[in-house]
Amino acid sequence: LNPLYAGLPTTIFEVMSGLARTHAAVNLGQGFPDDPGPLDVREAAARAVVDGWNQYPPMMGLPELRQAAAAHYRHWQGLELDPDAEIMVTSGATEALAGALLALIEPGDEVVLFQPLYDAYLPLVQRAGGIPRLVRLEPPSWGMTSEKLDQVFSERTKLVLFNNPQNPTGVVYDRAQMQLLADYCVRFNAYAVCDEVWEHVVFDGLTFEPLMALPGMRERTVKISSAGKIFGMTGWKVGLVFAAPHLMKVLSKAHQFLTFTTPPNLQAAVAYGLGKPDDYFTTMRAGLQRSRDRLATGLKELGFDVLSSRGTYFLSIDLSPQSVSIDDEAFCLDLVKTRKVAAIPVSAFYAQDAVKSVVRFCFAKHDATIDRALEQLAGLA
Amino acid sequence: LNPLYAGLPTTIFEVMSGLARTHAAVNLGQGFPDDPGPLDVREAAARAVVDGWNQYPPMMGLPELRQAAAAHYRHWQGLELDPDAEIMVTSGATEALAGALLALIEPGDEVVLFQPLYDAYLPLVQRAGGIPRLVRLEPPSWGMTSEKLDQVFSERTKLVLFNNPQNPTGVVYDRAQMQLLADYCVRFNAYAVCDEVWEHVVFDGLTFEPLMALPGMRERTVKISSAGKIFGMTGWKVGLVFAAPHLMKVLSKAHQFLTFTTPPNLQAAVAYGLGKPDDYFTTMRAGLQRSRDRLATGLKELGFDVLSSRGTYFLSIDLSPQSVSIDDEAFCLDLVKTRKVAAIPVSAFYAQDAVKSVVRFCFAKHDATIDRALEQLAGLA
Ligand SMILES: CSCCC(=O)C(=O)O
Ligand SMILES: CSCCC(=O)C(=O)O
Repeated sequence: LNPLYAGLPTTIFEVMSGLARTHAAVNLGQGFPDDPGPLDVREAAARAVVDGWNQYPPMMGLPELRQAAAAHYRHWQGLELDPDAEIMVTSGATEALAGALLALIEPGDEVVLFQPLYDAYLPLVQRAGGIPRLVRLEPPSWGMTSEKLDQVFSERTKLVLFNNPQNPTGVVYDRAQMQLLADYCVRFNAYAVCDEVWEHVVFDGLTFEPLMALPGMRERTVKISSAGKIFGMTGWKVGLVFAAPHLMKVLSKAHQFLTFTTPPNLQAAVAYGLGKPDDYFTTMRAGLQRSRDRLATGLKELGFDVLSSRGTYFLSIDLSPQSVSIDDEAFCLDLVKTRKVAAIPVSAFYAQDAVKSVVRFCFAKHDATIDRALEQLAGLA
Repeated sequence: LNPLYAGLPTTIFEVMSGLARTHAAVNLGQGFPDDPGPLDVREAAARAVVDGWNQYPPMMGLPELRQAAAAHYRHWQGLELDPDAEIMVTSGATEALAGALLALIEPGDEVVLFQPLYDAYLPLVQRAGGIPRLVRLEPPSWGMTSEKLDQVFSERTKLVLFNNPQNPTGVVYDRAQMQLLADYCVRFNAYAVCDEVWEHVVFDGLTFEPLMALPGMRERTVKISSAGKIFGMTGWKVGLVFAAPHLMKVLSKAHQFLTFTTPPNLQAAVAYGLGKPDDYFTTMRAGLQRSRDRLATGLKELGFDVLSSRGTYFLSIDLSPQSVSIDDEAFCLDLVKTRKVAAIPVSAFYAQDAVKSVVRFCFAKHDATIDRALEQLAGLA
């Protein structure tokens, strides 16, 4: 048995969702919305599974979905993508990430990663044979600096794995920070694998800019998107990969032997959904922004130190003002048991030197869910 | 770029389906049925996507599907499987296979494989760091012998990857052959990863027996099944993995970081489908057996040497009686262009020392499709 996997714990998301069930807690841990997702998109999937094609779709994805994605990303992000050579459909963003790392990394290559990091990143890099080089980001800004990047980039850097908007912090990196990272990629001739699954979930009028759009990055970037996140149906597992043809040729070989294809009825429904009018997407953002504000305001009123969140379904509190020797994990375990609210300790996103004072809440919930959580947290801060 | 993937061709199935489209040929290449699949199962999926849960299901799969699978395999194969510890749902059998190989293999481990082999096997074993040890099987019986197994099994053998019923040959291994393989697994303390996706597609009254059921194999076997094959909807990509708890613990860690979960609406529909009465499954087999016989008889009447097929959607012809210097690939390229019939050259299933005289046809087609192919092949043998 491969010791890498044998030594891994179950993900914190499964663990906390399990505890939430056991303790009948409000689940603000694992990131998924209360909302069931757009009915018209679900009905398109239903029609396609009854009336449509249920055999293998093309390995790269349904042509109609690749065309819809090209139009969608041209409109929203100004990207020009060839649907026949630069777009691939995967069974979720996790598969896209696994495939990209297996395809790009050769054993011994160095890979730059940022902590806090999504739980899949490190084991995937290691299983692909990569040597992780970790940048440690800290609250409240979670910013990159050239000092930090100098410590990890070198001639041995094969790629950087970058998540923007960032889970768990809710940071949306600004142009200056992205330019800094792009400069290092160009200088060290590194690829960038960009987990941009939260690209549509940005607030405060921000315009999301893909790393791929920066000068010198188009040919070296793999952009990963997720229909599950775009439409708030996290179980759908329809991912999208964008890359220049010379990269896509190799990425597609990895995909071909990971899942080969993705259910055509869901692909057809996503193709339909990507063509929805702007209104749908702005309304979705506005609704989530209201939920963010409701939870943030409520937590502040309870006395918590709430960190800024400009995107994703998540916001965090920093416990350090409350205590010097805080342990976010102990705090969360206590919270789910005694207050019946499940949250995620951000230390779970660190492989070493964890920041131990930050706790993440998912706000993609109905007002009543948020209000109940707030009531149960009263008097704690 | 990882040279393993950079050097791989597009799969023969995609290539031949593409040529079939270009030349408006009858496509008996890639294995998928003409039949759209059971309407009630598709309607169950449609209902679940409109009325049901579209967020992350549990990482191991919906409890109702794991319970339905336990009941189904107890009934059909006499297996006793704990739905909470021994059954996992994956996004198709390919993901199950990729995960099992990544989880079980440590770099440098030897892996026994049989040629002809399904195209995903060798790159997955190699990307996981395994050293392939290839057994070469030959027509007409494609049998294993202890001489052949002696050449590849050793103290360094970590696992054997076994496909039964076997694609592309249509062989269903009998008890004596399976016992031979099981003896080697036990003697060399090797795991067996069993691709048994064709288990329900067996003919002539055969009873399929999983390798896992043989003495000494229960604790060392990973069994992989596919709802796409069980219900003849190859695009659904719902796989099932069965293994003892100590293995499943590690397999689930690999799955968690390959796709994490599988669309819940399709899982719910498969749970429903696995509970269909015996009648459904026996009727499905009988229909496919009739199709096999129709194509086999037609090809024989045209003068082809038709090899036996006891399972899968496939039967093969052996061209060697027609010519001494035959090349199955050239034959198939010519066939799709001049006769407008797409088939698969079985040499594509060999990594070395290919058998070059065998051509595979998919018979999971309507009578009219089979008849049209036969007409277009007339006068060729
Ligand atoms: C795959 S479960 C985790 C979902 C998620 O993105 C999160 O909660 O961070
Ligand atoms: C994944 S495409 C190949 C389908 C199949 O099982 C076959 O044709 O052998």
